[in-house]
Amino acid sequence: MSEHIRLHIPGPVEVSPATYEAMAAPMIGHRSKDFVALYDSIQPRLQELMGTKQPVFLSTSSAWGVMEGTIRNLVVKKVLCCCSGAFSDKWVDVARRCGKEVDALRFDWGVPVDPAALDAKLATGEFDVVTFIHNETSTGVMNPLAEVAAVVNKYEDILLVTDTVSSFTVVPIEVDELGVDVLLTGSQKALALPPGLALFAVSDRAFARAAKINDRGYYFDFLEFKANHEKSMTPSTPCIATIRGLDHQLDVIFAEGIENRFARHERLNDTVHDWVRKNGFEFFAPEGFRSKSLTCVKNNRDIDVAKLGQIMRKDHSLAIDGGYGKIKGTTFRLSNMGDETDETIQNLLDALDDSLTKL
Amino acid sequence: MSEHIRLHIPGPVEVSPATYEAMAAPMIGHRSKDFVALYDSIQPRLQELMGTKQPVFLSTSSAWGVMEGTIRNLVVKKVLCCCSGAFSDKWVDVARRCGKEVDALRFDWGVPVDPAALDAKLATGEFDVVTFIHNETSTGVMNPLAEVAAVVNKYEDILLVTDTVSSFTVVPIEVDELGVDVLLTGSQKALALPPGLALFAVSDRAFARAAKINDRGYYFDFLEFKANHEKSMTPSTPCIATIRGLDHQLDVIFAEGIENRFARHERLNDTVHDWVRKNGFEFFAPEGFRSKSLTCVKNNRDIDVAKLGQIMRKDHSLAIDGGYGKIKGTTFRLSNMGDETDETIQNLLDALDDSLTKL
Repeated sequence: MSEHIRLHIPGPVEVSPATYEAMAAPMIGHRSKDFVALYDSIQPRLQELMGTKQPVFLSTSSAWGVMEGTIRNLVVKKVLCCCSGAFSDKWVDVARRCGKEVDALRFDWGVPVDPAALDAKLATGEFDVVTFIHNETSTGVMNPLAEVAAVVNKYEDILLVTDTVSSFTVVPIEVDELGVDVLLTGSQKALALPPGLALFAVSDRAFARAAKINDRGYYFDFLEFKANHEKSMTPSTPCIATIRGLDHQLDVIFAEGIENRFARHERLNDTVHDWVRKNGFEFFAPEGFRSKSLTCVKNNRDIDVAKLGQIMRKDHSLAIDGGYGKIKGTTFRLSNMGDETDETIQNLLDALDDSLTKL
Repeated sequence: MSEHIRLHIPGPVEVSPATYEAMAAPMIGHRSKDFVALYDSIQPRLQELMGTKQPVFLSTSSAWGVMEGTIRNLVVKKVLCCCSGAFSDKWVDVARRCGKEVDALRFDWGVPVDPAALDAKLATGEFDVVTFIHNETSTGVMNPLAEVAAVVNKYEDILLVTDTVSSFTVVPIEVDELGVDVLLTGSQKALALPPGLALFAVSDRAFARAAKINDRGYYFDFLEFKANHEKSMTPSTPCIATIRGLDHQLDVIFAEGIENRFARHERLNDTVHDWVRKNGFEFFAPEGFRSKSLTCVKNNRDIDVAKLGQIMRKDHSLAIDGGYGKIKGTTFRLSNMGDETDETIQNLLDALDDSLTKL
C-alpha cells in the first residue's frame, strides 16, 4: 500500500478508519429487510439534519447526477443558473446538454450572488427553475442562501434548486423553513464519506412539476425515488457499503451534537483564517461571504503554489489544493471540513509554515 | 453488528474481507496523480477481460444509470428492446421515460431471445438501437449473444446494446469480436464488489451516433467519458473506494486466471444443477440456455419457497432468493457467482437439504 497522504483538499476529504470499518459490514440484499432497516435508521436523522419533513433520497451517483436530474425533472420553460464559480458555471452547460432553455446570471468568480440582481432577472417571467450553489467550492464563497430563497419564493411558479455539496452539516440549513425545492449534497465533503452517494430532498411543488414532465427518465426520476421511499428502498441497486458508512457518520454527528459540529467547523475555519492573515495572505472571497468548510487563499504574495503543494506532500504527507480552473496558482485552498480536529488543523498550518520557508 | 447472513442471492453477492480491506485504503483526490495511477492500473485489465481495444468507462452509478444513458446517447429513430424477463421488460419503460420511440420484441419469461424473430423485426427498418440482456437475472436464462450480435450486425445503422450485468467474468465475452456497440455491467454481481459502480465500453460507431444527439445530458454522456478517459479520469467524482475494490478484484481474477475463473463458475453451476435434478426440481430456463451465474429453480414440487428462505436464513445464516416479480414463489434462485468455492456451494446445498426436511 502506498503512503498515506492526508487530504486537506476540498473533497474528497479524509475518511476515518471507523467509517471504513462500518462500510465493511457483511453485504446485504437491496430488497431485503436488512436494507429496509438500514434505510429506516438513516432517514429520520437525515430529515433532522436537513430540517425537512420530506423524504431524503439516497442517489447512487455523485452530486452531478442529481444536478442533471433536477434539470430533467423540473425545467419546462427555462432555467436560470446563478453563476459565480466553476461548479455553478458548469450547470449552464449541463442544462443545455439536457436540451433545455437556459440563461446565466453571472457574477465574477469570488463575488457572491446578489439577490436583487436575481429578483430583477426573475421578474422577466421567463424562468421556472433557478439553480444556486450555496457554497462555491471553487472560490470559497458562501452565497446568501436565505436571501436568495426569499427572492425565489416571491414567485409562485419558480422552483429553487440548491447545491449544498460543501456546506451540508457545516452550517445550519433548514430546507422547509427556507423554502428550497430541491436541496442536494454529496457524500465526500463534510460527511467525510467516500464519493459515490448523493443525498437530496424534494418539495411537494417540485414533485408536482416533475409529474408534468414525460421525458425525465428513470435513474434520477424524483417520483420513482418517492415511490421506492414508501417501501424504504431506492429505485436502483444502491451503494450499500457507502450507505453503511453514512449510517455510521450519522452516529458520529449526533454523538458530537449538530450544534457542536457547526461550532467546530467555525472554530477550525477561524484558525485557518488567522493563519492566512498572520502570513500576509488575503482571501479570495469577501468578508461576510466566506465558506466555513474551506478557505480559498488569494496568492497575493505571488508564491509558487504548485511547489508549495509538492513540498506539503513530500515533506509532510499532506495534500492541499493549488486552485481550481482559471484561478489555479493565483489561489490555493485549504479544507477544514469533515472529521477534522484542532490537532489536525494545527498540523496542517505548522506544515504550511515549514513549507513556506522552503519555497 | 448484526449476524452475518451469507448471500447466495443473484446480487449483491458476498464481498470478501480482502476486498473491503482494499477499499479502506486512504482516500485520494479524483483529480490527483494517485487517481490517474489507479485508473491506469485498472484500464488494460478491464480491456482484456472485455476483449476490447476501446476504453472501459467507470460510471459511478448502478447499471440502470448506464442503461438509461445508452438510450439518451444512441436512440434517434426508435429502440427495439428484446424482452424476456423482469430487467429486459423494464428497459421498455425506461426508454419511454426518456421520451424515445420504443417497441418490444417479447418472449415469455424463461424463453430465450430468438435471433430469427429479431431479424424479422429489424428488417422493418424502423429501428436504430437494440437493447439486449445477455443473462436475464430474473429468469436464469442466458440468451444467445453471438447469434443476436450476428443478426444486428447485418444492419449497418443499428447499434447493439448488451447488458452483461450477471454474466461478465462468468463466461467469455469478446466485445470487439462480437461487434457489440455498448457492453455494460455492474460491480455487485460476478465481480463481487459492493454495488454503486457500473462498467461499460462503447464502439466507435456508437460514439459517432452520440455525437449527433444534443440532449444526451452530462452525467452519462459517452463523449464526456471519452474525453476524461484521455486524462485517465472520470467526468464526475467517482466512487473511489469501490474502484480500489475493483483494482483488488482484478488482481484476484488474474491471479486465478480468467479461464480458471470461467471453469470454476461452470463447475459450481454444474454442482447446483446436479442438486436440482437429484431433488426432483426442474429448471425455469431450457437446456442450452441456462445461466452459469445463477440457477433459477422451477418450483415443480410446489414447496413453500418463502418458508424455505426463512429456514435457510434462521438455521443456516444463508440468503437465497424466492423468485422475482411474477415468478416469485413458483421459482427460487441460487447464485454461484463471484468468489464462491466448492466448499461454499456445498455448504449452500447441504443447508438446502436440511431446510427442505423442515418445511
